[in-house]
Amino acid sequence: MNKRIKLIIEYDGSNYCGWQIQPNQVTVQGKIEEALFKITQQKIKIHGSGRTDAGVHALGQVAHFDIDFVLLPIKYTRAINTCLPKDISIRHAEEVKSDFHSRYSATGKIYTYEIDNAKNRPAIDRHKVWWLTDEIDFEILKKAAEYIKGMHDFTSFTDGEKKDKNNIRIVRTAEWRQQGNKLFFTIEGNGFLYKMVRIIVGTIIDIARGNIPIQTLPDIFKQKSRIAAGQTAPAKGLCLQKVFYDINVGK
Amino acid sequence: MNKRIKLIIEYDGSNYCGWQIQPNQVTVQGKIEEALFKITQQKIKIHGSGRTDAGVHALGQVAHFDIDFVLLPIKYTRAINTCLPKDISIRHAEEVKSDFHSRYSATGKIYTYEIDNAKNRPAIDRHKVWWLTDEIDFEILKKAAEYIKGMHDFTSFTDGEKKDKNNIRIVRTAEWRQQGNKLFFTIEGNGFLYKMVRIIVGTIIDIARGNIPIQTLPDIFKQKSRIAAGQTAPAKGLCLQKVFYDINVGK
Repeated sequence: MNKRIKLIIEYDGSNYCGWQIQPNQVTVQGKIEEALFKITQQKIKIHGSGRTDAGVHALGQVAHFDIDFVLLPIKYTRAINTCLPKDISIRHAEEVKSDFHSRYSATGKIYTYEIDNAKNRPAIDRHKVWWLTDEIDFEILKKAAEYIKGMHDFTSFTDGEKKDKNNIRIVRTAEWRQQGNKLFFTIEGNGFLYKMVRIIVGTIIDIARGNIPIQTLPDIFKQKSRIAAGQTAPAKGLCLQKVFYDINVGK
Repeated sequence: MNKRIKLIIEYDGSNYCGWQIQPNQVTVQGKIEEALFKITQQKIKIHGSGRTDAGVHALGQVAHFDIDFVLLPIKYTRAINTCLPKDISIRHAEEVKSDFHSRYSATGKIYTYEIDNAKNRPAIDRHKVWWLTDEIDFEILKKAAEYIKGMHDFTSFTDGEKKDKNNIRIVRTAEWRQQGNKLFFTIEGNGFLYKMVRIIVGTIIDIARGNIPIQTLPDIFKQKSRIAAGQTAPAKGLCLQKVFYDINVGK
């Protein structure tokens, strides 16, 4: 009988064309499926909790797969990691019941976005931050984030989604934190549309730069049009921190 | 008349044979001197606050140089950064008086050391952390750090220094902080001997692993011998955060 295995995956997205497998592209999903093939000699498809774009990182991406190969979970992590490049790692593996699905069982996600706000470019975290030289007023960031919280139709904050889809999502946390010249944005919600976090961050920065008046945010939501919102923040500042599941699912 | 310029430098030490210039080796100092040559067509020697080893990082290394070339400090940072690789950046430059010396005027330094304590390897921060799979008791780390604080002869905690040198240093802060599976060590003192922080961290980890009894720390100091202390922690976990100067020097 097949077993279902849940994986928690960390990756540095800098060198990948995103999570999802694509022909002739190097992807995170592709690398993990290659590693599973090396170990099992079976073509195993893994299912992620959602895509991440090229350059986006993850500390806690979740995926599952089914296998008839019985190993202890710790053996999966060690075996798979041996076959993976250094910028991808299986941080945790466990056997779950078949009612668990990495995408459909997810109840929420946390993303962070990191900005280095300084006159001169960063070096150590150059692949992990958006470098902004403008003087950013931290209070405006916090005020703008308040408008994002709650239940909204996020159609204006996504790229390439069909208008007739249900684009209503609930954002439970949208917080900025400052540490030295670093600005950290944390957003938690029940689900995220394609590029949603990057367009939210880009729009908030456009507000802080004085390009978009903060009072127009409710109107940006109402317009349900991508062109109403601001720029898309660069991929490299974004990190999928954690995916949440109902504690009873898969047990 | 020559001007003295103080630089604050950030670098990812992963790809360098340390700070100090050496024949036929790629070093951080060498890269900055090359960049200065490209800009000024002059052979300018820069003086760092101290060496860092191969693989060690810096957020706030300090260096100075003398130049007859008059530019605004912000122009130096921009011009030099254009000629530097992406993993080195001049974060700040300012003109200082000639009584300022990056090494001799320094009154203290802060280093941090980062450990990832998890069963499976890290991916994003793989160049910045020491990965330890052992179950580490956080309380023991804190207790051991208490022994390090204060004025001591650190001869046991250095490599290759002559015994007759003055190896007495004052450690004002030695603190561990835990966040998820990350362990952060912060140490601040009036000066550090060669490999001192890495041997302190390695010894504390040997204590946490049960290889060295914590009560023997005072005796390790007394022995004034490198073999009395524990292992040298890997370079990649170490980062020079900041160098302190008397506020009146260079003004």
